[in-house]
Amino acid sequence: MAAPATTPARTTDLRTLDAWWRAANYLSVGQIYLMDNPLLREPLAPEHVKPRLLGHWGTTPGLTFLWAHLNRVIGRDGWNGGKGDALFVTGPGHGGPAVVATAWLEGTYSERYSHVPRDAEGMKALFGQFSFPGGIPSHAAPETPGSIHEGGELGYALAHAYGAAFDNPDLLVACVIGDGEFETGALAGSWQANKFVHPVHDGTVLPILHLNGYKIANSTVAARIPESELLDQLRGHGHRPYVLEGGFDGEDTAAVHARMAGVMDEITGEIVRLRARAAEQLEAGEEVERPAWPVLVLRTPKGWTGPKEVDGKQVEGSFRAHQVPLAETRTNDGHRAQLEEWMRSYRPEELFDEDGALRPEIAAFAPRGTKRMSATPHANGGELLRDLRLPDFTAFGVDVPEPGSGPVGATAVLGRWLAEVVRRNPHDFRIMGPDETASNRLQDVFDATDRQFTGEIRDGDEHTARAGRVLEVLNEQLCQGWLEGYLLTGRHGLFNCYEAFIHIVDSMFNQHAKWLAACRHIPWRRPIASLNYLLTSHVWRQDHNGFSHQDPGFVDHVLNKKPEIVRVYLPPDANTLLSTYDHCLRTRNYVNVVVAGKNPGPQWLTMDEAVAHCTRGIGIWPWASNDDGQEPDVVLGCAGDVPTLEAVAAVSLLREHLPELRVRLVNVVDLMRLQDEREHPHGLSDREFDGLFTTDKPVVFAYHGYPWLIHRLTYRRTNHRNIHVRGYKEEGTTTTPFDMVMLNDLDRFHLVVDVIDRVPGLAVRHAALRQFMLDERLRCRRHTRLHGEDAPDVRDWVWPDPSGPRP
Amino acid sequence: MAAPATTPARTTDLRTLDAWWRAANYLSVGQIYLMDNPLLREPLAPEHVKPRLLGHWGTTPGLTFLWAHLNRVIGRDGWNGGKGDALFVTGPGHGGPAVVATAWLEGTYSERYSHVPRDAEGMKALFGQFSFPGGIPSHAAPETPGSIHEGGELGYALAHAYGAAFDNPDLLVACVIGDGEFETGALAGSWQANKFVHPVHDGTVLPILHLNGYKIANSTVAARIPESELLDQLRGHGHRPYVLEGGFDGEDTAAVHARMAGVMDEITGEIVRLRARAAEQLEAGEEVERPAWPVLVLRTPKGWTGPKEVDGKQVEGSFRAHQVPLAETRTNDGHRAQLEEWMRSYRPEELFDEDGALRPEIAAFAPRGTKRMSATPHANGGELLRDLRLPDFTAFGVDVPEPGSGPVGATAVLGRWLAEVVRRNPHDFRIMGPDETASNRLQDVFDATDRQFTGEIRDGDEHTARAGRVLEVLNEQLCQGWLEGYLLTGRHGLFNCYEAFIHIVDSMFNQHAKWLAACRHIPWRRPIASLNYLLTSHVWRQDHNGFSHQDPGFVDHVLNKKPEIVRVYLPPDANTLLSTYDHCLRTRNYVNVVVAGKNPGPQWLTMDEAVAHCTRGIGIWPWASNDDGQEPDVVLGCAGDVPTLEAVAAVSLLREHLPELRVRLVNVVDLMRLQDEREHPHGLSDREFDGLFTTDKPVVFAYHGYPWLIHRLTYRRTNHRNIHVRGYKEEGTTTTPFDMVMLNDLDRFHLVVDVIDRVPGLAVRHAALRQFMLDERLRCRRHTRLHGEDAPDVRDWVWPDPSGPRP
Repeated sequence: MAAPATTPARTTDLRTLDAWWRAANYLSVGQIYLMDNPLLREPLAPEHVKPRLLGHWGTTPGLTFLWAHLNRVIGRDGWNGGKGDALFVTGPGHGGPAVVATAWLEGTYSERYSHVPRDAEGMKALFGQFSFPGGIPSHAAPETPGSIHEGGELGYALAHAYGAAFDNPDLLVACVIGDGEFETGALAGSWQANKFVHPVHDGTVLPILHLNGYKIANSTVAARIPESELLDQLRGHGHRPYVLEGGFDGEDTAAVHARMAGVMDEITGEIVRLRARAAEQLEAGEEVERPAWPVLVLRTPKGWTGPKEVDGKQVEGSFRAHQVPLAETRTNDGHRAQLEEWMRSYRPEELFDEDGALRPEIAAFAPRGTKRMSATPHANGGELLRDLRLPDFTAFGVDVPEPGSGPVGATAVLGRWLAEVVRRNPHDFRIMGPDETASNRLQDVFDATDRQFTGEIRDGDEHTARAGRVLEVLNEQLCQGWLEGYLLTGRHGLFNCYEAFIHIVDSMFNQHAKWLAACRHIPWRRPIASLNYLLTSHVWRQDHNGFSHQDPGFVDHVLNKKPEIVRVYLPPDANTLLSTYDHCLRTRNYVNVVVAGKNPGPQWLTMDEAVAHCTRGIGIWPWASNDDGQEPDVVLGCAGDVPTLEAVAAVSLLREHLPELRVRLVNVVDLMRLQDEREHPHGLSDREFDGLFTTDKPVVFAYHGYPWLIHRLTYRRTNHRNIHVRGYKEEGTTTTPFDMVMLNDLDRFHLVVDVIDRVPGLAVRHAALRQFMLDERLRCRRHTRLHGEDAPDVRDWVWPDPSGPRP
Repeated sequence: MAAPATTPARTTDLRTLDAWWRAANYLSVGQIYLMDNPLLREPLAPEHVKPRLLGHWGTTPGLTFLWAHLNRVIGRDGWNGGKGDALFVTGPGHGGPAVVATAWLEGTYSERYSHVPRDAEGMKALFGQFSFPGGIPSHAAPETPGSIHEGGELGYALAHAYGAAFDNPDLLVACVIGDGEFETGALAGSWQANKFVHPVHDGTVLPILHLNGYKIANSTVAARIPESELLDQLRGHGHRPYVLEGGFDGEDTAAVHARMAGVMDEITGEIVRLRARAAEQLEAGEEVERPAWPVLVLRTPKGWTGPKEVDGKQVEGSFRAHQVPLAETRTNDGHRAQLEEWMRSYRPEELFDEDGALRPEIAAFAPRGTKRMSATPHANGGELLRDLRLPDFTAFGVDVPEPGSGPVGATAVLGRWLAEVVRRNPHDFRIMGPDETASNRLQDVFDATDRQFTGEIRDGDEHTARAGRVLEVLNEQLCQGWLEGYLLTGRHGLFNCYEAFIHIVDSMFNQHAKWLAACRHIPWRRPIASLNYLLTSHVWRQDHNGFSHQDPGFVDHVLNKKPEIVRVYLPPDANTLLSTYDHCLRTRNYVNVVVAGKNPGPQWLTMDEAVAHCTRGIGIWPWASNDDGQEPDVVLGCAGDVPTLEAVAAVSLLREHLPELRVRLVNVVDLMRLQDEREHPHGLSDREFDGLFTTDKPVVFAYHGYPWLIHRLTYRRTNHRNIHVRGYKEEGTTTTPFDMVMLNDLDRFHLVVDVIDRVPGLAVRHAALRQFMLDERLRCRRHTRLHGEDAPDVRDWVWPDPSGPRP
C-alpha cells in the first residue's frame, strides 16, 4: 500500500494558508469594489469606489478557500510527491474575482499580463480592470490564467473535468460544482463519467460539491434535502463522499482550516491508494476495478467572511450575498464604512509589503512554476498540443470508375480511415458519441480499438473494454463536454451524432465557440485542435424514426457565431468525406461541422477529383454539365449527399428530355464559399461567385437543410433574385427515402419542373414535359403507398448514358 | 390509515392478464412485420411480410407488460377505488407498436380511427399502416391515443410526467424510463422534480426504470453498476425503490406476473397511504412532509418473448433485439418460419375470435371509458382546457404622457398583471423559470403566490411555500418539460428565462413544435394552450455577465419550424408587452416567443396606441416620423426595446441636424409581419410591405438579434436590396449598455451614419456631420473607459423637443 500523499498539517502551515486565503479574499473584494486606494492606505472615499458595481461575491470565498487548501496538498513541487499536476475547474465561474485573485497571488497573472505587476500599481490595475469597460470579464473567462472553463453558463464543469482527465494519468482535476449548477441536467448526467475514466491510464477527477445553499434569489435543492439523501445520491453515483461543514455561526476560521486540512489529506491519500491498487491490478493482469473515487461536499456560508447584515437584512449565509452585498458604497457613507471594515478584516497590512507585493513568506505557500494551478499547461492546451499522425487518406478512397458508381456508404469508408488514425495516435485522439458509432457505420474503428467502460463487462459485449479510444454514453451533453475538455487540454477528437439531436448541445456549442472567439485576442492562449462534428443519420434517411428525428438546423445555429470560428462541410460522397475530414483534423481553433450520410449511395468523384473539389470547396462538375464553357441557360446548385443525387438525376432527365438546354451543375462542399468574402474568410469574391452562378440566369439550388440558409448566405450576390432553393421544409414522417425528398419538393422531377418554370419560354413550349414530370411524382408516390418501398428506377438510380434510353 | 388500493391478485385474473399481454405482444410483432394474413389463418408467405421492416421490438414487451399490470391495478372503474385516473408516459416511445397495440385492444384506437375497427380487417389495417408510407409513425407519436409524449428524442419523459401531475390530485402518472434514456442529462436532472410536487394538491408520478440492459449496440450504464449503487441513487433522489426482475433464463411468465402483481399492489398501496398521510397533515395544519414516493426498477430481457437466437447469435436479452430481430423474413424462409413460430407462441387463436376481435373475457380486463389509459382526456389536454380568466391588461398599463417618458421596467409591469392572472386562475396557470422570476423583475407575482417547494423551508426564505404557482429550478430542461407536460394535459403557463440560455432547450422546443405541427392533422386532438416564452435579461443588458450570456439566436432557431406554429414578438415597451402577453395567453397550439427587457427604459406608446400597434403588429410611428404621409427619403425600421430606443434617438438626431430629411420610423412588434404572406399567416402582402418600407428608398433597420434574420424574412420583398440591418454580431463583453450597442454598430450615432451613407447625396454634402457622429461615438467610448459608466446624455436619454436645443 502506498504512503499517504501528505503529512498532517502543521499549525504554522495553516496560519500561512489562512493568510494566503485572506489575501485572495481581500483581492476579490477589491476587484468588485475599488478603482483606487487598493491597499487602503487612506480612508475609503467615494471616488475610490467604482461607479457600477458588478460581480459575484457569494461563491468567491469558497473558491479561494478550496484553492488555498489544494495548494497545501499540492505543495511546492506538485501533488503526490511532485509527480502530479493539478487543474482547477471552476463550475461557479461567476466567482471570477477568486480565480483572478489566486492567479495574481501566484504570480501567473503578472507573467501573462505584464501591465498588472505584483505591486501596488498592479493591484490597482487588477482592481480597476475587473468588470470594467475595456477591462476583463467577471467570470473565469479565457482571459483568466489557469481556466479551461468559464462557468458563465452553468452545467458543464464536471464533463469538462473528465475531458481533461482522459489520458492524463498524473493529473488531478479538482472540479468545483456549485449547488446551483448541481440542479442542471448537464451536471446531473455528468456523474456517470466515472464509469468511463480509467483508473490507471486516465487522471483523477475530484468533484467538490460546494453547498453554500443559495442561488440568485432562492435556496438550492441540494441544500434542502437531508444530508443522508444527498450522500446516498453521491454513493449511488459511485463515489465515496467526504463532508466538511464550517464557517457557520461565526466559527473561527482556524478551526475550519484544521478540519479541512484533515479531510484533504484523507482524500488525497485515498486517491493515491486507489490509483496504486488499480496499477497493481493492471500489472498483475487482473481486471481493473472501478474505484469509488472520493467526492467532497463542502458546506460553507454563501458570502463567507463578508458582511453579516446590510441594512438590517442577513447577507452572509443567504441569497443576498450572491452578487454585490453592499450596493451603494459610492453614495451611502454607511455602506462604504462597512466595506472598509470588511476589507480591513482581512488585515491587508499583514499580507502585502510596502510595495503592495504579497509578503514572500506567504507567497512561498503556493506551488512553483507549472505546478501552480494558475500556470499549468493543461489549462492552456495549445502548449501541449501535438499534431496528429494522419494516415494518407487517399489510400482509403473508393474506386469510382464513373460518376454514379457504387453504392457505397460514406461514413463506413471514413470509419476505415479513422481506425488507422486511432492506431497511429493511441494517446491523444478520441471519438465520442451517444451509442451511435456502429449505428453511424463507423464500426471499423472497432478493429483498432474498443469502447472504454469501467462498469461491468459481460460475455457477449462487443468491442467494450476497460481501455479504448471510443467513449459512448447516451448523453450528447456529456459527449460534447468530454470532447471540449479533451481539446482544451491539448488533444484531438471528434463527436459523431445523429444530426437532429445535436441541437441538445446548441448552448454548449455557443459557449465553446465564444471561448474560441475570445482566445483569438489573448496572445498567450495557444491554438487548440478544432472541435469536429460528424453529423450523420441525417434528415433524409430517418426512414424508421420519422418526423421527430428530422432536423438539419444545427448548421443554421452554428452560422450565427463568429465567421473566424465556424466551418460547415457537406461532402457529397465517400472520397470527398475523406478529404474533408483529413482537413478538419489538421485545423486549429475552429468548430468544423461535417454532415454526411451513412447509407450506401452513388459515388461521384475519383480521389484526385475529390481532393481538387474539396480544395476549392465549390465547383462545376463538367461531366454533369453541358454548358461547354459557355454561359448556361440554367445552373443547378447542390450541397449535401441526397440533394446532389437528386440534382444529378435532374440533370440527367434534362439532358434526356431537353438536350438543347445548356445546364451547369455546381456542387458545394464548403458551405462558407457561398458567402461574401467580406463576411467569411472562405467566402468567394463576387467575381468568382458570378463566374459560377452567372449574373442573370436562373439557379435552382438543392440544399440539404432549411432552404432559407442559402438565401441568407447569398443575399448580397448579384444574381440572388434568381436563386431558387429547395430543401427541408419540415415535411417529414416515417416513409421511404424518395418519398421524403418528394414531400419536400427536393426530388429530381420537381427540380426539373423548377427549371422549366424558371428558364424563360420553357413552360409554354414544354408544358407536356412539365406534366410528365409531375406524373412521374404521382407514379412514385403511388408505388410507395402500394408497395411500401421506392419505385425501382429511383431507388437504384445511377448516372445513365445520356445518349441511351431512359433507365 | 387507508386500506390498500387493491386486493391480492387471483390466479384467474393473472391468466387473463397474461392473455391480454400476449395479445398486445402479438399485435406488436404483427405491426412490425405483416401487411397481410394478420391472424395467421394461413401459413406465412413472403407476400404477407412488409418489404421494409422498420420498428423497435426490444423495448416493446416491457411496455406491454407494464400496461397490462397497470390495467390490473386500475381495475374496471379507475384506480384507487374508482377515484383516480391514470396516464402512461412512454419514455421509450420507439416502442410505438406496444402503445398502438394496447390502444387497439382497449378499443380506443378504433374509436379514434374508425377505419381500423376491432376485427380482422381492422387488424390488417393496424398492421399495414405501421411504419408504412402513408401510415403511422413508429413512435408513441401524436397519432397514438393516450400519448402525450412521443419519446422520439429521449430524455423528457419524467419532466413531462411531473408536468402532467401538477394540479391533478387524482392522477397517477406511470412514467416508463428506458435505461438508455436514464443516461441523458435531461432525465438525470428530472429526478429533482419530486421536491416540487405537492403530495395533496398534485398527482403522483410513479417512475418505472425499465432496465432491459441495452441500447442500440451497447450495454447501458445503469445495467452495469451494482444494484446497490443504483438503489442508493434512487434513494438519494428521494424515492423508495421496489425491484422486480423476471423473465430471464426462460423463467415462466406466470411466475413473473405473480411477483409483479404483488409489487404493484405494494406500490399502489403505498401511494394511497402516503397521500392519505399528507392529506391528514394538511388538514391538521401541520407542515406537509415530502414522502419518499415509490419508484419501480423493472429488469426484464430486451426483446422478452421474442426469438432467443437468430443465425446463431443471441437476440433476446441482448442489444440485437433493439430493432427488428429477424431482418430477412421476406426472402429467408428460415427467418420467416421463425417469425411465424414466434407469433404463434402467443397463441392468437385463444385471444381473438372468428372475426378477429379480442375475446370479450379478455377485453373485459381493461378499464372502462375514460379510465382506459389510452382514452384518458388528460392525454388529449384540449378536451380539458378552459380559457383563462384574464384581468383587463389595460388597467395595468403605464401612463405615457409623451414618447420617451419613464423610465419603466417592462417586465415589472407585466409582473403586476401576471400576479392578477395567478389570483384569478389558481388551479391551471403556472410560471416556470430557472431561479429567475425575481431577477427577471416579475417579483410582483410573489404578492399573489409563492414558489412551490417540498424540500426544507427555513426562516428567512422568501416567497417559498409547500404550494404555489411558481416553479423554480435551475434547470431549463426541467422547466420546459414541466410546462410542456402541463400544457399537453390541458392547462396554461409561461416559461421565463434568460435569453441566452433558452438554447439549452432548443431540441426540446423542436420536439414540442413538431408535436403541435403533427396535431394539426389529427382531428381528435383538441387544441391546447400555446407554449409561451418570456425571454428577458437579454443580450443588450448583460452588463455584469458579458459575452457568455449574450445570444439572441433562439428566434432564428424557432423560425425554422412550421409557420403555422411559431410566433415571435418584440414589444418595445411596457404597454406593448402587456398587450402582447394578453394575446399570447389567449392563443392555442402555438409557440409564442416574447423578448422583452427587464431594465427601466423609455416608454413610447399610451395604452390605446399600444393596443392598436400590437393589433397591427407593425406600423409607422407618426410622432417619430416627419414624412407627413409623403414618400420618405429614408425609413428607419426597428424591432426590440433597445434597438427602438436607438432608432428613435437616431431620428431625433436626424431631425436636429438634417431637418429637411424626410424620415419614417417603422416599429415591428410581430416579427412575422415582415415575412411574405405566402410564407407565414401573419405575413404582410407585398403591397402592404411596400407601403411601409417603400419600393426604392434606403431602409436602415435596427434589430434586436442577429441581423441576417431580417434579410431571411424579407429577401423576397421588392425593396430588399436597400434594406440595411444592424443587430448583434457577436461583439460583446462585460461593459455598459451603450458601449454594447456601440460594439455592434447599433447605436444612434452609427444609425445616423448609416442613413448618411445610404441616402443619395448626403455623404458628400454632410461629411462634417458624418464625422461629428463618429466623434460622438469616440466621446462616449472615452467617457466609458475613463469613468466606467455611460455618458449622461446617452444614459438618461428621452425624446427631446425636436425644435429645442440638444439635451
